[in-house]
Amino acid sequence: MAKPRTLTQKLIDNHLVYGDVARLGEEVRLEVDQVLLQDATGTLTMLALDAMGLDRIQVETACQYVDHNLLQADYRNRDDHIFLQTSTARFGIRFAPPGTGVSHPVHMERVGVPGKLLAGSDSHTCAAGSLGMLSFGAGSLEIASVLAGEHLSISLPEVMGVHLTGRLPPWVSAKDVILEMLRRHSVKGGTGRIIEYHGPGVATLTAMDRHVIANMGAELGATTSVFPSDAQTRRFLRDHGRELDWVELAADEGASYAYTDEIDLSSLEPLIALPSSPDKVVPVREVVGTPVHQSYIGSSANPGYRDLAIAALMVEGRQVHPGVSFDLNPASRQVLTDLVKEGVLAHLIEAGGRLHQTGCNGCMGMGQVPATAQNSLRTTPRNFPGRSGIADDHVFLCSPETATAAALTGKITDPRELADSLGLCYPETDLLPSNPAVGTSSMLSAPPLEDARKVKIQRGPNIAQLPEIEPLPDRLRVTTLLKMGDDISTDTINPAGSEAMPYRSNVQAISQFCFRDLAQDYPQRGVASRESGGHALVAGHNYGQGSSREHAVLAPQYLGLRLVLAKSFARIHYQNLINAGILALMFQNPQDHDRLDQEDVLEVVDVHGQVEASREVIIRVPGKDLELRAEHRLSERQRDIFHAGGLINWLRCKATA
Amino acid sequence: MAKPRTLTQKLIDNHLVYGDVARLGEEVRLEVDQVLLQDATGTLTMLALDAMGLDRIQVETACQYVDHNLLQADYRNRDDHIFLQTSTARFGIRFAPPGTGVSHPVHMERVGVPGKLLAGSDSHTCAAGSLGMLSFGAGSLEIASVLAGEHLSISLPEVMGVHLTGRLPPWVSAKDVILEMLRRHSVKGGTGRIIEYHGPGVATLTAMDRHVIANMGAELGATTSVFPSDAQTRRFLRDHGRELDWVELAADEGASYAYTDEIDLSSLEPLIALPSSPDKVVPVREVVGTPVHQSYIGSSANPGYRDLAIAALMVEGRQVHPGVSFDLNPASRQVLTDLVKEGVLAHLIEAGGRLHQTGCNGCMGMGQVPATAQNSLRTTPRNFPGRSGIADDHVFLCSPETATAAALTGKITDPRELADSLGLCYPETDLLPSNPAVGTSSMLSAPPLEDARKVKIQRGPNIAQLPEIEPLPDRLRVTTLLKMGDDISTDTINPAGSEAMPYRSNVQAISQFCFRDLAQDYPQRGVASRESGGHALVAGHNYGQGSSREHAVLAPQYLGLRLVLAKSFARIHYQNLINAGILALMFQNPQDHDRLDQEDVLEVVDVHGQVEASREVIIRVPGKDLELRAEHRLSERQRDIFHAGGLINWLRCKATA
Repeated sequence: MAKPRTLTQKLIDNHLVYGDVARLGEEVRLEVDQVLLQDATGTLTMLALDAMGLDRIQVETACQYVDHNLLQADYRNRDDHIFLQTSTARFGIRFAPPGTGVSHPVHMERVGVPGKLLAGSDSHTCAAGSLGMLSFGAGSLEIASVLAGEHLSISLPEVMGVHLTGRLPPWVSAKDVILEMLRRHSVKGGTGRIIEYHGPGVATLTAMDRHVIANMGAELGATTSVFPSDAQTRRFLRDHGRELDWVELAADEGASYAYTDEIDLSSLEPLIALPSSPDKVVPVREVVGTPVHQSYIGSSANPGYRDLAIAALMVEGRQVHPGVSFDLNPASRQVLTDLVKEGVLAHLIEAGGRLHQTGCNGCMGMGQVPATAQNSLRTTPRNFPGRSGIADDHVFLCSPETATAAALTGKITDPRELADSLGLCYPETDLLPSNPAVGTSSMLSAPPLEDARKVKIQRGPNIAQLPEIEPLPDRLRVTTLLKMGDDISTDTINPAGSEAMPYRSNVQAISQFCFRDLAQDYPQRGVASRESGGHALVAGHNYGQGSSREHAVLAPQYLGLRLVLAKSFARIHYQNLINAGILALMFQNPQDHDRLDQEDVLEVVDVHGQVEASREVIIRVPGKDLELRAEHRLSERQRDIFHAGGLINWLRCKATA
Repeated sequence: MAKPRTLTQKLIDNHLVYGDVARLGEEVRLEVDQVLLQDATGTLTMLALDAMGLDRIQVETACQYVDHNLLQADYRNRDDHIFLQTSTARFGIRFAPPGTGVSHPVHMERVGVPGKLLAGSDSHTCAAGSLGMLSFGAGSLEIASVLAGEHLSISLPEVMGVHLTGRLPPWVSAKDVILEMLRRHSVKGGTGRIIEYHGPGVATLTAMDRHVIANMGAELGATTSVFPSDAQTRRFLRDHGRELDWVELAADEGASYAYTDEIDLSSLEPLIALPSSPDKVVPVREVVGTPVHQSYIGSSANPGYRDLAIAALMVEGRQVHPGVSFDLNPASRQVLTDLVKEGVLAHLIEAGGRLHQTGCNGCMGMGQVPATAQNSLRTTPRNFPGRSGIADDHVFLCSPETATAAALTGKITDPRELADSLGLCYPETDLLPSNPAVGTSSMLSAPPLEDARKVKIQRGPNIAQLPEIEPLPDRLRVTTLLKMGDDISTDTINPAGSEAMPYRSNVQAISQFCFRDLAQDYPQRGVASRESGGHALVAGHNYGQGSSREHAVLAPQYLGLRLVLAKSFARIHYQNLINAGILALMFQNPQDHDRLDQEDVLEVVDVHGQVEASREVIIRVPGKDLELRAEHRLSERQRDIFHAGGLINWLRCKATA
């Protein structure tokens, strides 16, 4: 009899085209069924497809969502939308215009299918695990290569099984489950792992509850998360007019996991992540009374109808505290329609809520920026420093229940206390729309090929060609411009927010924002370094965590970055560095990090030869008479990409070979 | 028997405290009942009140609305909100937080009372004429003085009676009435006039229809507009739970007007203002087929429930054209609630509309900026060059019906054609909510005095003190930095938009945006001029039209502006110049404008003596051996303010006298 398999193993087996699933950590190549793009990263993908001369995408379906940059504070933003709309029409990608909603929940509502493999140019692509999909975030260039017909290459992760039992008590919701995971495992705990949820507790969570949990698997550093496809999945698909897409999927009985954990859902209580990391989690009751100035509901981390419906039932007939901006961000056109049709939206508005347009919005600082030195409670996935749009921000992450409790009282409040203080009992309803507005937006269609070839891609004046990348020379001699600690996020490397993001289609221009909050002179020093062969960055663990945005490698590359030496890398960022032809090395001995300083000159001789010969690369520090051992983790394919000077050069060589 | 009076005369008589109503053009002083403030101009008012050391406002009621700058793209915006919230609590002003809605319709819904006099720090304050109020826009400092107990001084306008007959046909609405007025009279046609609507056609217009017409009286250059208070007014107040505030008001039978005009409403057709002035009005049928990229509904010029309800009924069951961004901006929390409760909001969302937060938003470039070289159809009041947030914009002004027709077809379309092309018939309904959500937002309260004194005003780091202003020296010798033509708007002098507006509480910082689209080096040359005694600006007719924003005088003043010489001035801007201690003169002979050039040095000797002695002021141009005659229109009070170096200095002297 065959060995019982985990659901993850089954999904990988079903998509494997190259590699040995028994050899952990080795590269495997997977066939991609679906691709998801969002606008902050999608414009780079379109520029890459254009640079490759693609005719028609080579995957089953691909969707370009416009959700990140909706402020339209100048012409660049809307020019980008038109660039994306015409590019997608040209290449055969489905286009979701602004107003459709956040990519992840909309993809789940309209496109996602259990058992399919989804690759997306967004780190929260993993949210599709909620539907029993195998889903991976990747950089913009990597996704361009997938659209052009390349398989998705990943380093095979281990599977961690999380056994769920019990049922969530009143006032505790899915967000508290993933916050509990972050409390236990930290932002590095999921690195190199796929998290598979199983056990009897799973059936008590709706598909959208699972989305909340799978989405923030990104914050655990996990490669992705996976849920079974069961009756809850079927109900979700039926409510969205797609019951025929449902298939049942689950791990075999007796399947074993490399790592295991267990959560009794009934034992959980309201949790909150303190500023400024998603894993600084404590029970809400430990911080009650802290003044709150903003209470924010929305984002891909709490995108469901129920997340605003519970808030609506809590504030019905009440008024929010006058000191709180109660910011409501519906995640999809469909959710907004359901909120209108069910009548609950009126409670939120009458109570004093501020209804914003459908999209990602304040989640990465596109509006709704908090005031100076004020606390903001948010249901968003991330509270990395400055991500809200103000340096030295004070952002807490929590459930909609906890955020709404604070909106009513003006301070952090355990929602379980509201029964006593406000006579507010937990609503006895399943918090699902009684008559969902099926397929509200039908704006997801791609033209047939003959029409597509006639489309002229429209480029506004801010839309630049991608900078050309040269392969690294054989002898590297670079100055260390920054020495950093652990957990540097891509928000720190190349910030989002309303100032930088309008330049997302212009690597040259956006490079001026690199490390803005850490070292304002970095762009200037970077440019100066180019004449003498470029520069290096030194970092601690988990370098490049957070958003998948490729600007965080292309912009420093443009400024002369040639070598990153770190204790460890976040998965997507590591691949992005390779795809930009940058040498990314790990300290063999993490203590060597202490021996290096800013301004140290680092030398690597015979770069390409060393990379090809073994995992080990010798780095000399002439100023300190030091020699350090570092290593790479490049697969054969990744080595080829590195030698060629990045992914686009490599694909071009392949095409002409 | 007393001579029959116009409604305007009655309203003025009821509020007159100084002056002779028989002497046209002379200064009269009026008792103010209510004050309206918005955030873009309100922060300067609060800074002025603080500079004056005010304890408690001296008018019946004053309301501070937060509607202009809601993007919160950085911390400054929300810091401003908190500054306004704490300042209003300190001084006893009612505060409407972001999300409450656009000041003018919210004031009409919640506060306005027929027969009362309203002064507001916004040029569209005149919209309150729709309720039978006498309402005037003014600058931030002027409004601060009113709050401190000064009477409102205005130069007595003539009254123009517009006799309305008939009833609007299907597909033609209130916006077409005011566009017809602009077509006939231009942006200068209302200068020095109050427009009073009367006749049997008035009764066919709802109170909110009248708001549309009165609001854009500002674009005619009119001092204000007035409608009777009748059964329609009563219905509006009843629908908003305030029927007891209703009084009947109308002109006496047989009252005569200095100027007259007549509109047969039944003869009107859909009209549209071409880029880039509100008076470039043509019938829609003359420009059908022009491609449209954005269709925008909202703003104080079309703020009613009916303006989105008609759009909803038009798009119900249809999809908007994929090339059009259909931007929906509800004008008040109450309108948004009614749209939800009546169910029509769902039609708009399902059809592909983008629902934005409640507020002014894109009307002055705070988001929703069009793409490069694309046409935008808007129901907003203004399409001055660049106001939408992009230089060289292509903004058309029209009714919600015309904007929605374009959203459906992707090109300018006469809505009367939709019956044939789409089978769309004009809806047979009165377009009013069947069960309006009375008083949805109860967030308009001021604390009692004893509590107010305890309030600490919170200032974020961007909130600066107002620059001190020196009285002009007796001998002025200034270089002409710019020579301009007619109709320069305050949007050109000191742009709104998402880049500049965050600095509204910081005159020093916002001065760097002055004349950005006309002469980028103006701020630098201005600063340089300060050392040699300042500079002059030369302009044509109607200088300073548009927004009342005081930044358009305080910022140039900070940069050294001492003299403006123009053919004529917009009313509010003229008073603002005086209030900033700037010498504002009109050419006696408008042809002299042709004799002056940029860089000409202008000299005025015995400045204060000349101003005091007569209306005439002699200007010498030494470089051209010229002597020009100019004149001022300063009242005694205005001369005192000018001599003192502006309003704040004058009020300080008064207080210590």
